[in-house]
Amino acid sequence: MFNNVTIVGVGLIGGSFALALKEKGFAKSITGVFNRRETQEKAFQLGIVDEALPLEEAISKADLIYVAIPVDITIPTMQKIMGMITEKQIVVDAGSTKLALCKAVANYPMRKRFVATHPMWGTEYSGPEAATKDSFTGRACVICEKEKSDPSAVKIIEDIYKALGMHIVYMEAEAHDIHAAYVSHISHITSFALANTVLEKEREEDAIFELAGGGFESTVRLAKSSPAMWAPIFMQNRENVLDVLNEHISQLRKFKACLEKENIDYLYELMENANKIKRIIK
Amino acid sequence: MFNNVTIVGVGLIGGSFALALKEKGFAKSITGVFNRRETQEKAFQLGIVDEALPLEEAISKADLIYVAIPVDITIPTMQKIMGMITEKQIVVDAGSTKLALCKAVANYPMRKRFVATHPMWGTEYSGPEAATKDSFTGRACVICEKEKSDPSAVKIIEDIYKALGMHIVYMEAEAHDIHAAYVSHISHITSFALANTVLEKEREEDAIFELAGGGFESTVRLAKSSPAMWAPIFMQNRENVLDVLNEHISQLRKFKACLEKENIDYLYELMENANKIKRIIK
Repeated sequence: MFNNVTIVGVGLIGGSFALALKEKGFAKSITGVFNRRETQEKAFQLGIVDEALPLEEAISKADLIYVAIPVDITIPTMQKIMGMITEKQIVVDAGSTKLALCKAVANYPMRKRFVATHPMWGTEYSGPEAATKDSFTGRACVICEKEKSDPSAVKIIEDIYKALGMHIVYMEAEAHDIHAAYVSHISHITSFALANTVLEKEREEDAIFELAGGGFESTVRLAKSSPAMWAPIFMQNRENVLDVLNEHISQLRKFKACLEKENIDYLYELMENANKIKRIIK
Repeated sequence: MFNNVTIVGVGLIGGSFALALKEKGFAKSITGVFNRRETQEKAFQLGIVDEALPLEEAISKADLIYVAIPVDITIPTMQKIMGMITEKQIVVDAGSTKLALCKAVANYPMRKRFVATHPMWGTEYSGPEAATKDSFTGRACVICEKEKSDPSAVKIIEDIYKALGMHIVYMEAEAHDIHAAYVSHISHITSFALANTVLEKEREEDAIFELAGGGFESTVRLAKSSPAMWAPIFMQNRENVLDVLNEHISQLRKFKACLEKENIDYLYELMENANKIKRIIK
């Protein structure tokens, strides 16, 4: 049990982590670091944090610091934290990209007190009002560059994530970013692009509203995601995302060619191949 | 209450319709028309139908005939049915495309006993084992070319769909096919293509399996859909689908250009525009 846990960024992920820590009895008190007054008020209303402090004060009193802010501002924030903490503290981030951050903190003496994590869970909603205490249950949590963190710090963080119902997967930061491009980032781009397609061409919004069934909703729901969170992820992971995006466009062109040439045999072949995804997801 | 309802094609849709009819007391007996023995056995095991008959016999005894088979074989099947039925019978189809079928039956004397419908519901699963009695609840049902059907027949079919919890939307067949391309067909193509993208590039299937979260699952789940059902839909609606697919590829290229040029402002703009989909879907 920690005397104090500081959550930097009390949104969907930071808020869910805070709620789960409290629920499981890991923290006596939780301090939030906010950059917007409305978020702070909402987090208090929802009972997610016990107090709010500026970053420096919050860091100095924390046993554990959990950083869950957009990946672009994570880097300077984490560098600042690296310069402030002692060997008795642990810092964890929850970002969707890992390579740039791991490189940015590589040479800080306190690097060993940092555990780079990515709990593989999210929704299209953001802010503390989207946080729930059971968010992470049943999902994977990636830990990167485990060997660069103190084993005792890794053990504590693993135990927390496991207590929240997650299973741990170890990966190099570079491998993480490649896999994340496939299993998460590309889904968001296709969903954003699909929303723009429909909004561009389908002027009769009432028709969409009336007719849209579960299939449309599930493929387009990620298009409601926060640009402030996702634009920096795509930019930081741009080479991997571009690689997957190019492949995706070429796969779509195959469908286009089938339709243009009325080649139903090839269309079947493409779809039967896609059906193999059943092996991977239930 | 009908003495006999014949379901041609007892799969996801036909099976769900049969179960709902029984549940609501609309049918004394339900006859299934099957083209595969396994499907027939499964439908009996699940109690979806009371008997199985060849098409001709089943049609001759039915008060209501419900056709829910792939859209390519719907056309010759429906033409056959049009040539057999009397003024006392009603025929309904549940296909995802409407224009080609409506044209194909336009000149049959019994056209007036046909009601062209599309209950806007489905899942990525198929076969009678995927059918449920509450499938249609809360969804829209499109009726096309209402004016070409006998008002009494339309009224009966509307009453049934409403009793199953659907709301009715009237549309011309051509307009239906355009809207369906946007709110349903393109989602399936992007999902099939996304599955192929990941299967092509991500050789480490274990990584997908371990890491894939809710976002990936929801955008890719339609890729599990039946090629036998969907290939004919895309082909019959190819002009509309191509139109939407071209737009979708050009929307994806905009994301690609943002990443290539590191233009984060434009990336934000694209994503903020996509966020407008919130107005349309909850």
